[in-house]
Amino acid sequence: MYSVDLNSDMGESFGAYRLGGDEEIIRYVTTANVACGWHAGDPMVMDQVVRLAKEQGAMVGAHPGYPDLMGFGRRKMALSFQEVKNYVKYQIGALSAFTQSNGMKLQHVAPHGAMGNQCQYDEEISTAIVEAAAEFDKDLIIYYCAGAVLGQIAESRGLRAASEIFADRAYMDDLSLVPRKMEGSMITDEEVAIKRCVRMIKEGKVTSINGKELDIRGDTLCVHGDGPKALAFVRRIRETFADEGIEIRSLQR
Amino acid sequence: MYSVDLNSDMGESFGAYRLGGDEEIIRYVTTANVACGWHAGDPMVMDQVVRLAKEQGAMVGAHPGYPDLMGFGRRKMALSFQEVKNYVKYQIGALSAFTQSNGMKLQHVAPHGAMGNQCQYDEEISTAIVEAAAEFDKDLIIYYCAGAVLGQIAESRGLRAASEIFADRAYMDDLSLVPRKMEGSMITDEEVAIKRCVRMIKEGKVTSINGKELDIRGDTLCVHGDGPKALAFVRRIRETFADEGIEIRSLQR
Amino acid sequence: MYSVDLNSDMGESFGAYRLGGDEEIIRYVTTANVACGWHAGDPMVMDQVVRLAKEQGAMVGAHPGYPDLMGFGRRKMALSFQEVKNYVKYQIGALSAFTQSNGMKLQHVAPHGAMGNQCQYDEEISTAIVEAAAEFDKDLIIYYCAGAVLGQIAESRGLRAASEIFADRAYMDDLSLVPRKMEGSMITDEEVAIKRCVRMIKEGKVTSINGKELDIRGDTLCVHGDGPKALAFVRRIRETFADEGIEIRSLQR
Amino acid sequence: MYSVDLNSDMGESFGAYRLGGDEEIIRYVTTANVACGWHAGDPMVMDQVVRLAKEQGAMVGAHPGYPDLMGFGRRKMALSFQEVKNYVKYQIGALSAFTQSNGMKLQHVAPHGAMGNQCQYDEEISTAIVEAAAEFDKDLIIYYCAGAVLGQIAESRGLRAASEIFADRAYMDDLSLVPRKMEGSMITDEEVAIKRCVRMIKEGKVTSINGKELDIRGDTLCVHGDGPKALAFVRRIRETFADEGIEIRSLQR
Repeated sequence: MYSVDLNSDMGESFGAYRLGGDEEIIRYVTTANVACGWHAGDPMVMDQVVRLAKEQGAMVGAHPGYPDLMGFGRRKMALSFQEVKNYVKYQIGALSAFTQSNGMKLQHVAPHGAMGNQCQYDEEISTAIVEAAAEFDKDLIIYYCAGAVLGQIAESRGLRAASEIFADRAYMDDLSLVPRKMEGSMITDEEVAIKRCVRMIKEGKVTSINGKELDIRGDTLCVHGDGPKALAFVRRIRETFADEGIEIRSLQR
Repeated sequence: MYSVDLNSDMGESFGAYRLGGDEEIIRYVTTANVACGWHAGDPMVMDQVVRLAKEQGAMVGAHPGYPDLMGFGRRKMALSFQEVKNYVKYQIGALSAFTQSNGMKLQHVAPHGAMGNQCQYDEEISTAIVEAAAEFDKDLIIYYCAGAVLGQIAESRGLRAASEIFADRAYMDDLSLVPRKMEGSMITDEEVAIKRCVRMIKEGKVTSINGKELDIRGDTLCVHGDGPKALAFVRRIRETFADEGIEIRSLQR
Repeated sequence: MYSVDLNSDMGESFGAYRLGGDEEIIRYVTTANVACGWHAGDPMVMDQVVRLAKEQGAMVGAHPGYPDLMGFGRRKMALSFQEVKNYVKYQIGALSAFTQSNGMKLQHVAPHGAMGNQCQYDEEISTAIVEAAAEFDKDLIIYYCAGAVLGQIAESRGLRAASEIFADRAYMDDLSLVPRKMEGSMITDEEVAIKRCVRMIKEGKVTSINGKELDIRGDTLCVHGDGPKALAFVRRIRETFADEGIEIRSLQR
Repeated sequence: MYSVDLNSDMGESFGAYRLGGDEEIIRYVTTANVACGWHAGDPMVMDQVVRLAKEQGAMVGAHPGYPDLMGFGRRKMALSFQEVKNYVKYQIGALSAFTQSNGMKLQHVAPHGAMGNQCQYDEEISTAIVEAAAEFDKDLIIYYCAGAVLGQIAESRGLRAASEIFADRAYMDDLSLVPRKMEGSMITDEEVAIKRCVRMIKEGKVTSINGKELDIRGDTLCVHGDGPKALAFVRRIRETFADEGIEIRSLQR
């Protein structure tokens, strides 16, 4: 029997600004990565999305990012080890106030944007994130992009790590995502995208953009919830997974 | 036997900006009110001050403020009940990440600046703060300025509340602090100031600026740590209290 | 011959967050009130909206607000006279960098949100805004809500002032807008709304929510550009005004 | 006859946070580089420092930085060309509101911190800064660290450029500053430091940390104003320059 967690980035609204369709996508996923007020999100939004997650039985994790609201956390910043560690710890704590208030446990930490991208190879940033999480709570799971050094560092420190895969993105030969500007970066054919997911989960294999066969571990699949098209795609993923005998369930169960 | 907690506002530095003498004052107090990054403070500062408190055996509480770094949280903002509640909860959680990482428990919540001042009479803001604290952790103590409605609301919700008094400030007939612009607002004679403290703690009495005798409860005394003069004053308080049989200890012991 | 300026609030996007339909509404108005990065807007957005305005021949004015991005400038803040004055001056200057770079002149200043609302009666805030504008450029026009003290103060200081009216809002007996929570605050019947506008512009009269006939001066009419419905309404206003002999033109011409 | 401009970074306070001794140093320099509210400074501070400069007859320039108050603009951020250009333009405009209000002209632009450091070799960032300045006002002078590509790009675009030298810093063979962590980065002997300045200004020569003779152009000398020691050093520089026949005057005269 196969299984996979279905996660989505949520809580990315800020003040009067609305982003994403949290109320809808939460019905289809098992786990929410919640922005913590630095690159996106604010306490009102965090409170609301944690409540939504509780109602729908979804797990909640922190989605910390760089202190760059204007750049949505997508711009690399040259922070020190201690800065990354303390900034991540602060954000984990801030979100945990809302899970704790709702009788929930914070499940995981999934770095956002530029910080997340740097975890593919940057051992210092990865270690800072892992230490922040471990010092807060040894039971936190670290979500990392398949192949990222972050996963190894988390496990070497005794934390559980979950390898995240993407339905709509092509992979380079080193398992890093094909940059968006490159041709072929997006898997636009939904049929193909879903078949790739099934193969990643059941066989642990994916074909790179150069045609190379790669080993990949898919513990959690990232999906998007903005717009009716995205929701339809998630529904289709769920149907196919049901047919393929892949159970969709959070990592906690 | 009499006793009193000695608290000070700390962690008010931000980035390259230094404020207050945390390293010094922490040696003389039993409790630190730590800024949480909204009106002052940042994760690097919070990490450091929590470590200092641990080393010196001081208790740590959250000192949440309005989202107004430029105004140091001293400017009234017209926030809704839910906004105050979620903003305070966020800040409590953020600071708790650092206490929890250091094996400490967050002891209390003491609202800062304009938010704190409004708690003298504003039941809505006071209730929002109490609910934020109670939902996070029923054991959090609420620090309130002597006479403030915040104290009654905290106790009515089953939370422990600590009445805070000031050595260097004069009181109006309703126990509110004499506004700084008014003549006589500051008790500048140190001898007088300390005698007033002793009386507040031992007799539960203070004389208002109009000469009226008031009942006052002094669970915790607020002192300042910026500059050698302030430190000398705190040392003098400690000596006098020793002579007067007033034990200085945190509320936890 | 009658004439009126048609203005709209623009440039309210921020970073990854999109708000309003600037590209569309700019085609229908003669003047843009541009957010200056404090309650909304950022330099990328400001640059773009100023270029749009130039292309479409629209005038550009500053729409300064409180330093409260999280509250979109809609929450009252207790600022001092000097703070309001310097904060407004800063924002005027920041926006003028973009008009000046494009060979345009900043036309006016229209305070946003809570700051704008307070200008109905608050002489101190109004004076601060007028002084900020006047010291920067004596030719700046002050946009004020019909009846607001801001208009009188601007004129008493020798600045030109433009009285702003709203198509979709009901008026109290003192010309202040009926608060949104009150029944009848919005004029939902488009036919009625447009007729009211025509009357305000041609006769200088409006009927209050209590049925009282009020004098009102309509130099500039505020319209919204978010969504197809709003755009359709603006087009209808333009058609009716053409039929009624009301020329839509900026205050500069 | 030799001459040199004496500049200092000012206006770096923020809200309740005080940094630097603006009131003192302004008496000794001919030019102030004023922070514009992004990495440091706020409108109250900007207003005050511009007034101080006017009183003392000093020139004022913009000292724009990255949007990173928490890092004081010292942390590299991966911004696009357009972002740097618009962010710098915004800050130039904001400061110009205060010079214009005081009947002064903004004299120059001197990038701060990480942005400034990147201008040593980064042509894209340098071009963005030069374009921002040039589009705002062709007469703005660009201050660049001696040897930086920023200077060449400014001159190639027809802007005047001023080469900045440092009294207390050692130079690498390529005229970049010796990083602070390296031994010998600071010229601690004041006598030596001042002699180096005189030689840079009169002979256009400096000896690198490796003993190599380098050509250097010194149009403007950067001095610091924090603390009595720094002020004493500036006074000594002024005395020595007088003896050496080096006139201290702004670039405008």
